[in-house]
Amino acid sequence: MARTAGSHSDITGPRVRAAALKLFAEGGYAAVSMRAIAAEVGVQAGALYNYTPDKQTLLFELMESHMRELLAAFEDDPALTPTARLARFTRFHIRFHSDRMSAVFIAYMELRNLTPENFEKVEALRRRYENRLEVILRDGVAAGEFDLGDTKIATLAIIAMLTGVNTWFRSGGRLSLEEVSAQYCDMVLRSVGRTGGVLEGGAR
Amino acid sequence: MARTAGSHSDITGPRVRAAALKLFAEGGYAAVSMRAIAAEVGVQAGALYNYTPDKQTLLFELMESHMRELLAAFEDDPALTPTARLARFTRFHIRFHSDRMSAVFIAYMELRNLTPENFEKVEALRRRYENRLEVILRDGVAAGEFDLGDTKIATLAIIAMLTGVNTWFRSGGRLSLEEVSAQYCDMVLRSVGRTGGVLEGGAR
Repeated sequence: MARTAGSHSDITGPRVRAAALKLFAEGGYAAVSMRAIAAEVGVQAGALYNYTPDKQTLLFELMESHMRELLAAFEDDPALTPTARLARFTRFHIRFHSDRMSAVFIAYMELRNLTPENFEKVEALRRRYENRLEVILRDGVAAGEFDLGDTKIATLAIIAMLTGVNTWFRSGGRLSLEEVSAQYCDMVLRSVGRTGGVLEGGAR
Repeated sequence: MARTAGSHSDITGPRVRAAALKLFAEGGYAAVSMRAIAAEVGVQAGALYNYTPDKQTLLFELMESHMRELLAAFEDDPALTPTARLARFTRFHIRFHSDRMSAVFIAYMELRNLTPENFEKVEALRRRYENRLEVILRDGVAAGEFDLGDTKIATLAIIAMLTGVNTWFRSGGRLSLEEVSAQYCDMVLRSVGRTGGVLEGGAR
């Protein structure tokens, strides 16, 4: 993080990142210049370099902070049954991502524009998040609540299914996010070998 | 399709599209110039305009032909049970997409770079493909083989899950595509209310 410390950064830094998020999501990282970001913030292009050394750093900070917020926001509760934990994870994932359309979009679209070093850091955070789900699946298998093959594959399959909601869900549509979330919850629980929608209890 | 007809187009057209596919996948549509595509093909930049009017047409043709090939490649078989048809769809989707990494990548990454008119055409083809799956799900519900909520949501959930394989599967890894495919098949069938992995037969 090569931001200049001090009160100006404290105020302008978030505005710079918000502007970069908006412009990257609209036009793509490659097509957005530092000058365009400065104009969106309302500062001179030269002044932008007080807040960030370059466009790559801005992209990395957006993707890294998205993953760190995701990790901070999901708290597993080992006191619950694996079935209940998986239902909680499912609802959490859909809700968290639906509130952050631009950040999620960039997290997937702009991975290829990270430097290899930055890519590796973001991927490590993504793997940490995936592991949170995989632990739930493993515990569910151990407890006899889930019946599935490879827990890593199941993890990736479930996350892809859930994140896909962002590509088509629009609030005000035919179904509310709660209704959509309930059906995904049902499908996810069934996909790991739970029978329909039971959130508590023992083996099937 | 504003390509010039004739033998030169017949030979060079596919090479132009192959070069555009490669470069768009590597660097993104916005960052690739017609000059770069011409260089990849091995023709002068001016000569490229004999084969395509502009970069947008190239992008659209790549995405449209990908969707048309997908639609042509999947043949549903109404003589089978809905369960068997869903299993066939699952294996087909994973196999087809794993053979076309660059085209699939572009189909998702560059949607925003289509003109509104071209976007609508590609989306119409995508909806036709989604409908193929939804028909299977509806037939399964009608036959009492599947037990699920909204068939449109289930369609989108399943396609997102299956297409996600492309983001992580690499041949030569821990599991073969066949093994991965078998587990997805199991998860998909269960997610719609079929119990584990039974490919034929009646209601659960």
